[in-house]
Amino acid sequence: MIHQDTIVALATPSGAGAIAVIRLSGNDAISIADNCFKSIKSNKTLSSQKTHTIHLGHVMDGTKTIDEVLVSVFKNPNSYTGEDVVEVSCHGSNYIQQEIIQLFLRKGCRMATAGEFTLRAFLNGKLDLSQAEAVADLISSDNEASHQIAMQQMRGGFSSEIAKLREELLNFASLIELELDFAEEDVEFANRTQFTDLVVRISFVLKRLIDSFAVGNVIKNGIPVAIVGEPNVGKSTLLNALLNEERAIVSDIAGTTRDTIEDEISIGGIGFRFIDTAGIRETKDVVESIGIKKTFEKIDQAQVVVFLADSLNFKEDVFINSFKIEIEKIKNKYPLKPLLIVANKVDKLDENQIKSIKKDIPQIHFLSAKKNIGVDALKDKLLSFVNTGALRNNDTIVTNSRHYDSLLKALDAIESVKHGLESGLSGDLLAIDIRQALYHFGEITGEITNDDLLGNIFANFCIGK
Amino acid sequence: MIHQDTIVALATPSGAGAIAVIRLSGNDAISIADNCFKSIKSNKTLSSQKTHTIHLGHVMDGTKTIDEVLVSVFKNPNSYTGEDVVEVSCHGSNYIQQEIIQLFLRKGCRMATAGEFTLRAFLNGKLDLSQAEAVADLISSDNEASHQIAMQQMRGGFSSEIAKLREELLNFASLIELELDFAEEDVEFANRTQFTDLVVRISFVLKRLIDSFAVGNVIKNGIPVAIVGEPNVGKSTLLNALLNEERAIVSDIAGTTRDTIEDEISIGGIGFRFIDTAGIRETKDVVESIGIKKTFEKIDQAQVVVFLADSLNFKEDVFINSFKIEIEKIKNKYPLKPLLIVANKVDKLDENQIKSIKKDIPQIHFLSAKKNIGVDALKDKLLSFVNTGALRNNDTIVTNSRHYDSLLKALDAIESVKHGLESGLSGDLLAIDIRQALYHFGEITGEITNDDLLGNIFANFCIGK
Repeated sequence: MIHQDTIVALATPSGAGAIAVIRLSGNDAISIADNCFKSIKSNKTLSSQKTHTIHLGHVMDGTKTIDEVLVSVFKNPNSYTGEDVVEVSCHGSNYIQQEIIQLFLRKGCRMATAGEFTLRAFLNGKLDLSQAEAVADLISSDNEASHQIAMQQMRGGFSSEIAKLREELLNFASLIELELDFAEEDVEFANRTQFTDLVVRISFVLKRLIDSFAVGNVIKNGIPVAIVGEPNVGKSTLLNALLNEERAIVSDIAGTTRDTIEDEISIGGIGFRFIDTAGIRETKDVVESIGIKKTFEKIDQAQVVVFLADSLNFKEDVFINSFKIEIEKIKNKYPLKPLLIVANKVDKLDENQIKSIKKDIPQIHFLSAKKNIGVDALKDKLLSFVNTGALRNNDTIVTNSRHYDSLLKALDAIESVKHGLESGLSGDLLAIDIRQALYHFGEITGEITNDDLLGNIFANFCIGK
Repeated sequence: MIHQDTIVALATPSGAGAIAVIRLSGNDAISIADNCFKSIKSNKTLSSQKTHTIHLGHVMDGTKTIDEVLVSVFKNPNSYTGEDVVEVSCHGSNYIQQEIIQLFLRKGCRMATAGEFTLRAFLNGKLDLSQAEAVADLISSDNEASHQIAMQQMRGGFSSEIAKLREELLNFASLIELELDFAEEDVEFANRTQFTDLVVRISFVLKRLIDSFAVGNVIKNGIPVAIVGEPNVGKSTLLNALLNEERAIVSDIAGTTRDTIEDEISIGGIGFRFIDTAGIRETKDVVESIGIKKTFEKIDQAQVVVFLADSLNFKEDVFINSFKIEIEKIKNKYPLKPLLIVANKVDKLDENQIKSIKKDIPQIHFLSAKKNIGVDALKDKLLSFVNTGALRNNDTIVTNSRHYDSLLKALDAIESVKHGLESGLSGDLLAIDIRQALYHFGEITGEITNDDLLGNIFANFCIGK
């Protein structure tokens, strides 16, 4: 174990709650806790207890009782960090949390830095680096898809795929480097045909992983959607109709609020972010001025555009013509951006009117946000823009830009190896590119690392994890 | 056990954190958890585990993994509620918390109401009612004194004092009621002298407890202090100087913020609330207009008034005279309210000037908020207004207005008993008053209770406790 001093931090969110958990890890975690703990049962010490057991007692500062607590004991190596770990579950008062943490600091603990518990887990070999990064993703996951990817990565799905490729490549690298030792004898330990096969396979996997980043990024960060259109066509009603189901789920769970992601909804487990909705809700732009800067700015930021109109307006031919011109304007400016043409308040039209409008604008989607008609169909359409195939097939998806970067560099090196093999490059030159690819694989899983890199990664963690 | 269905709630604060704890209690807590839990070790079930043990595994929704968790098992009666309890420690993502709680709800749990875990602990005899109330006080305690009182009460200090008196009174009540059975024989089982002694003693204790409520209330809610004075005399500098030490402590603990009690400071373990400090900081009132409504409103709400002036002003006799008039105005309007006359910026004066001002206004306290001269002495003066004797002596202090109310009623009944004994009242009439006193004692500890009362008490708890 590299780190041996004992660290302490609050592991639960600060604020009002029934309980709070304070976590200690390090060589002296159990003896420091023993120093401040008086069991309900006389003469019981934590150090004499088995791992994974819980003990009721009081945290004592000398003769002063700070709190009645439950203390959990985890003995190395059977803990999250791989070190001795103690978790104190106390009453959820800020005052009590502070008193207990201050007490532990006085008794020889050090305040943990962000992510230091997980850093220690990595340094002690409990997790590889990409698994450690997945812990942070898991904590910040806020929809099914991002949660599922983080969970798969934490359980080693991504690392094991990379590790397998790395091992096969390492075998060949060894053989080729062995050839170099016997350079004068002109032997070939590494079968070039098999090696070419491997390099092609690795290149294929790397390309798939690199391609998955587009999906992964969308899943991790949500898909930005712009709803544009005239005032009073029902943009906020539509947004509320889309949000509705999600809200109902949230309100079932007292004590959890999701105000911060108010305008992000989850459809089929994918997050959709309605960008600048405060602006959209107050927007004063009309169809005539859809070309104005603000609307285009909104579309600029979006990956999907919903162009909303009021069904009643389609009764007038003049409107239909100008509407078609607006659609063309958007399509010309953003030829690759999915555009959904939506007519709200469909309940105000009869069958014939609907048919006639569809003849004019075939791609139009009718709905009534207020009466919840066609809203689910719109959700399906939004979801159809996301390539969820990989997600459904449980394929590995890359969401981390650091991994993406390393994969790109590894692919670059592997492509060089491939060309080298094709052009009959000498073993010593081949070896350089292979080492380079191995290096970038190692960066992902953490075999190759340095303090700066670790510092950057774990600085994004919260304290206490 | 009265309640047998299984309840679930988030026990830790909602929001971002390394971990969150979800708590289940009830007959099916362990079997429901088993239904959703897959141990890392194959075939291990929670129901076959010992109490107070921790198990690593995954929360599974069918074949879908929701999270890697630690599960703590507590078997009845050895748990907080006295029922079977399971605590799931999961990653601190709102999404994961929700998924796990929803899963448990689907598997047969019910969402816990506020304070329901502690209510069950009370109903199952793990705590008496005043101890249960102390749990809520403990969670909301934000300074040493309120924490100490809540802790003492939770550990039974208050209840045991009441219970002892109740028992002694109950003995005499039985003897007197026995006399009633033998009314025709004119016997006296209850020694009237001993009984009078007891009643006097109970009355004494009740009065002490009732008196302690004034201190208790101050400790629980903090002492409101008004700082008044001209603009630019250094009110906010003084406030910052007073806050300084406390802030330093807080900033040591990353992840805890105390923004909400920004203007409450703890001096000697007692909370002092600087009322309407936003107003004070922006105030435009000058000495000439100190009589204005706003300043008096501020003083109205305060228990202690700090009247702050700039030392430099005292160089002018005109100022001293008008200042003395202002002091008299405040003293006349609030004859009983402690008033501290404070002169800031003492570093701008020389010894002779200080002496001369002290001759004019003997009670003046000089300090420099900026240079931190005399600030500690001001703290001592503020503290001297609080009767902390009881606190230091570890006496029982009443902080709960429900208890205060019952104590007043009990005292009333005991005084009636006393008068009855003095006037030789017959046993049957005496018994009525004794029963009344016993009833009010029982209200405090929870022997006497009803659903409305319990509903009111536990509604003030947070969910999950």
